Amino acid sequence: MPLAVGSWAREVLLCVGFLAWLFVLAFGGEHDGVNIWPMPKSESHGSQTLFLSKDFVLSTRGSKYGDGSGLLKEAFDRMIDVVEVNHIVDGRTPTSSVLAGLNVVILSPQDQLNFGIDESYKLDVPAAGKHAYARIEAQTVYGALHALQTFSQLCHFNIYKRIVELQLAPWYILDQPRFPYRGLLIDTSRHYLPLPIIKGVIDSMAYSKLNVLHWHIVDKQSFPLEIPSYPRLWAGAYSYSERYTKADALEIVQYAERRGVNVLAEIDVPGHALSWGVGYPDLWPSAECQEPLDVSKEFTFKVIDGILSDFTKVFKFRFVHLGGDEVNTSCWTNTPHIIEWLNKHGMNESQGYKYFVLRAQKIALSHGYEVINWEETFNNFGSQLSPKTVVHNWLGGGVAQKVVAAGLRCIVSNQDKWYLDHLDVPWQKFYMNEPLTNISTPEQQKLVIGGEVCMWGESIDASDIEQTIWPRAAAAAERLWTPLDKLAKDPRQATGRLARFRCLLNQRGVAAAPVAGPGRTAPLGPGSCYKQ
Amino acid sequence: MPLAVGSWAREVLLCVGFLAWLFVLAFGGEHDGVNIWPMPKSESHGSQTLFLSKDFVLSTRGSKYGDGSGLLKEAFDRMIDVVEVNHIVDGRTPTSSVLAGLNVVILSPQDQLNFGIDESYKLDVPAAGKHAYARIEAQTVYGALHALQTFSQLCHFNIYKRIVELQLAPWYILDQPRFPYRGLLIDTSRHYLPLPIIKGVIDSMAYSKLNVLHWHIVDKQSFPLEIPSYPRLWAGAYSYSERYTKADALEIVQYAERRGVNVLAEIDVPGHALSWGVGYPDLWPSAECQEPLDVSKEFTFKVIDGILSDFTKVFKFRFVHLGGDEVNTSCWTNTPHIIEWLNKHGMNESQGYKYFVLRAQKIALSHGYEVINWEETFNNFGSQLSPKTVVHNWLGGGVAQKVVAAGLRCIVSNQDKWYLDHLDVPWQKFYMNEPLTNISTPEQQKLVIGGEVCMWGESIDASDIEQTIWPRAAAAAERLWTPLDKLAKDPRQATGRLARFRCLLNQRGVAAAPVAGPGRTAPLGPGSCYKQ
Repeated sequence: MPLAVGSWAREVLLCVGFLAWLFVLAFGGEHDGVNIWPMPKSESHGSQTLFLSKDFVLSTRGSKYGDGSGLLKEAFDRMIDVVEVNHIVDGRTPTSSVLAGLNVVILSPQDQLNFGIDESYKLDVPAAGKHAYARIEAQTVYGALHALQTFSQLCHFNIYKRIVELQLAPWYILDQPRFPYRGLLIDTSRHYLPLPIIKGVIDSMAYSKLNVLHWHIVDKQSFPLEIPSYPRLWAGAYSYSERYTKADALEIVQYAERRGVNVLAEIDVPGHALSWGVGYPDLWPSAECQEPLDVSKEFTFKVIDGILSDFTKVFKFRFVHLGGDEVNTSCWTNTPHIIEWLNKHGMNESQGYKYFVLRAQKIALSHGYEVINWEETFNNFGSQLSPKTVVHNWLGGGVAQKVVAAGLRCIVSNQDKWYLDHLDVPWQKFYMNEPLTNISTPEQQKLVIGGEVCMWGESIDASDIEQTIWPRAAAAAERLWTPLDKLAKDPRQATGRLARFRCLLNQRGVAAAPVAGPGRTAPLGPGSCYKQ
Repeated sequence: MPLAVGSWAREVLLCVGFLAWLFVLAFGGEHDGVNIWPMPKSESHGSQTLFLSKDFVLSTRGSKYGDGSGLLKEAFDRMIDVVEVNHIVDGRTPTSSVLAGLNVVILSPQDQLNFGIDESYKLDVPAAGKHAYARIEAQTVYGALHALQTFSQLCHFNIYKRIVELQLAPWYILDQPRFPYRGLLIDTSRHYLPLPIIKGVIDSMAYSKLNVLHWHIVDKQSFPLEIPSYPRLWAGAYSYSERYTKADALEIVQYAERRGVNVLAEIDVPGHALSWGVGYPDLWPSAECQEPLDVSKEFTFKVIDGILSDFTKVFKFRFVHLGGDEVNTSCWTNTPHIIEWLNKHGMNESQGYKYFVLRAQKIALSHGYEVINWEETFNNFGSQLSPKTVVHNWLGGGVAQKVVAAGLRCIVSNQDKWYLDHLDVPWQKFYMNEPLTNISTPEQQKLVIGGEVCMWGESIDASDIEQTIWPRAAAAAERLWTPLDKLAKDPRQATGRLARFRCLLNQRGVAAAPVAGPGRTAPLGPGSCYKQ
C-alpha cells in the first residue's frame, strides 16, 4: 500500500524534523537568534557583523550626568574586560564595519540608587558605517549600566580575527524591568563569606540584572558584623577573623551600588538571634534558654535601636529587614522574669511576639527605614503591621495574594520554588514561578514589588556558593525582569539561551553549574558547555 | 576509697586534657604556632607583633636582578592585595613596631624559569625596631616569589586596628623544595576551561608552591587549541568559542611563568587523539574506526611534527608530554591498509605501538624537548625509550622504583592517591603518598623528579574545578615541597594547619572545599571555616 507507506515515511520525516527543531530550540546555533539574558522588553535586529575598534571609546556627548565618581567609566571598563574574557585581542581592526565607540546619554544628573529608580534604557547599534557609534539612552546611570550588560551580551570574541565583534546589527533595544525589587539573599551567619566571595556574587548579580543583595547578616549561629554602638556583639562571630568591620560593610554597600545593586541588611528578631547574647548575655531570656531575645528588657530594644542607628550610616537602602520568622516562644514562657513581665502587661506569648515585632518596626521607622518582615508576622497579626511593611513570603505559594489584598506590599520567595538551598529544585521551577499568580488588579499587582531567591547558608560556604546560586538564580532573574508576554511559556524554549548565559558566566570566571539537572550538579560526562 | 577516687578523677582530668590537646592540635588557636603551608625547611620565630606600614614598600637594594619586566614588582603588589583580602585598611599605623618594607635581594640577574632552577630563599623578619625592613634573599627571582608567598602567610588583617599585622616576629626562615617538579594536571579536552578559570588555578598553585601546570590540552573528545601549521585541527573543538588561540596559550604560559609556574603541554598519542581527525580524517585509521592515530601514514608524523614545531614557539618548558597511555590497537588490526603496512614492516600491533611512541619521541627531541610519557610506554618497552624520557606513573604504586632502577626519571601520580577526580580519596591519602617509597639510594631518589596531582576533566568544568582541586592538591603540595623529616607523620597533626590554609584560600576568593570529608564535599552544617 504505497499511500500508507508514503504517509508513514512523511510522518517519520516530520517527526525527525520536529526533533531537530527541538534540538535547535534547546541548544541553538551558537550565534543564531537573540541570546540575551534576561530577555529585553523589545528588540529588533539585523544580520550584519560589526567589529569593535581596539580603542573602543566611551563618549558621553549630550549626557546630563557628570560621572564625577567615575561610576559610568568604571562600568564601561568592566564591560570591555568581560567581552574580551581574557582572550588576547591581537587582530587587526578591519577598515570597514567598525564600531568606534559607545555614546551614553543619561538624562538625570543624579546617581542616588533609590528604590524604584528608573532602570530603563534604549540601546541602538547602527548598521555598518564609517566611524559608527552605538548609542545608549537612559534616564539614570543605572539604566545605562543595564544597557552595558546587554551590550556585552551582543559581543563575542572572534576566534579567527582575534578581535571583538558584535553580531546581528543593527540592533534597537527598548528595555525596562517588570519588577523594581529583584533580590538574592546571602547568609553570612551559618557560614562566613569572605569579602572577595561577596563581591563575586555582586558582579554576577549585575550580569543578570538582579538589583538587591539581601544580606542576612546575623542569625543564631554567628554575629560577624561590627556594631560600634554595641562593640561586644561581634563576640558572637565564629572566630577572630570571620568578621566584617563597619568599613568592610560600607565597602560591600558601595561596591554593590556602583553596580546598580542595593544592599538590604537584615537582623532577624526576636528569633534567629541567639548569637547576640554571646557578647551581651542579658539579651538571652536566661543562660540556659537563649532565644528568642528577651522581650521583657528595655535593653533588648536599646540594642536594636543601636544597631539600626549604626545601620543608617552604612546601609542606605530605603528598607531594612527585621525578620520575625520562626519564633518559638517557649523560652519566654519558661523564664520566671519574662512570665512575670508578660503577666504584668496582660500579654500571652503570642502577644509578646507581636509586641516585639511592632516595637522593632517602630524603631526602624524612627530611623527612616521602611520595614520588611518575614510572612509569619503577617500571618499572625497582619492588620497591625505598619502600613509601610513589606511582607516577605517564604513558606509557600498563595501568600502574596493575601498580603496585597490587605493593602500591604509583598516580596515573593516561596521556598518550594525560590530557595536555592533546595538542591532538588531545577532551574525550570525557578523560571516558572510567577509572583503575580492569582493577582489580577493593577493596584494589587503593583503591591508585589518583586521577588527574591534565597541562598541560605547551612551547607553553603565560599567553596560552593557560586555553583549553587547560578544558573538557577538567573532563571528567576528573567522572570523578574522580562515582561510576562516575552517570557518563555515553556521553559524548554529558554533552555538553549540559559545554557548560553551559563557558559557566558563560566567564561567570565563565575562557577555556574550545568543547566541539565538539579541545583549544583556536576557535569555528568564530557561535553560542550553549551549542551550540559 | 579516696585514693581510688582521686586516681579516677586524675585519669578523667588527664583524658580531658588529652582531648583538649588533640583539639588544639586539630584546630589550633587562630594565631598560635606556625601556620605556614607548605611547611618550610626550617624556621624559628619569636612572639612579637609587627604592623605593616600603610605604605609598605618593596626595596631591591643590593639585588642583582633588574626586574626589567616588572615580574617582582607585580608579585609584591599581588602579595599586598592578598594580605588585605579586600578588608578596608583604614586604621592608623602605630608609631612603634612598624615594618616599613621588604628588602628583596636576588643574586642572579636571570629570570628564565628553567627546570630545576634554584627556588630556595631566606626570609628574615626583624624584631620590633625603628623603620624596620624584612629581608628576602634568594638565588633567583622565583625563590623570592616563594618567599613572598610565605611572607603573605605570616600576615593577618587586624580586625580591631584595621591594619595588617605580622605575628610571631622575629622570623628566620630557610626554605627550599624537596622536589623540583610539583605538578597539577588540568584537562581541557573533556571540558573546555575558560581562560579566567585557568588563571585562577595558576594563582592558587602559586599559593601552595606548586610549580608545573600540566596542560592535558587535547584528547578524544575535543581539540581546543589553535595549531597554525595544521589549522583544521581545532575543528575538533566542541564549539566555535570553546577554543584557545595560539596567543591565548602564550598568555597562559606567560601568566604562569610570572608566578613561577611552568606549563607542560601534552598531546596524548597515539591513543586519546580521536578529535584530531575531525579536521584531518586521514589521521583516523578509517571513518568507522577512529583511534589510535593511523600509524601507517607519514602524514600522522608530519602533523605531530607540525604541532611540536608550533609548541616550541609557545611552550618553553624543557619537557613536552607525549602521552602514550591506554592504547587499544584494535582499529589498526581491523583496518586493511594498516594490517598491510604492519605486515610489510614485520610488526605486530604491539610493535606498531612501540614504533609510534619512539618515533614521536624522536620528533620531540629534534625540537629540543625532553619527553614525558605515561607509564604504559615504560611497562611495555621501557628499555627502548629515549634515556631522556621521564616516565609518568599513574596506574598504581611501586612503579617509580622500577623506573629509577632502569635509570630513567619518574613523576609520581598514582591514581589511587593523587587523582583528584577520585572524589572518595580524602586529603589525608594525598598527604601521605610518598614518592620515594622503597627507593633508598640517593642516585635513584634523585631520578624521581617529583609528583603531580591530576584533575581529569570528565566531570569537571568551570563550575566545580576549584573545589575539587583544593584543598587536596595542597596536601600533595606539602609532600612535594617540605623535607621528609618536617612532614607530619600522622596527617592529623596537619589538620588544623591545612584547615587554616583552606580558609586562607577562601579568603583569597578560591573555592577550596572543607577539609572534613572526601573530595569536593559541601559543609555538613553551619560552622566556622576553621573547624570544617
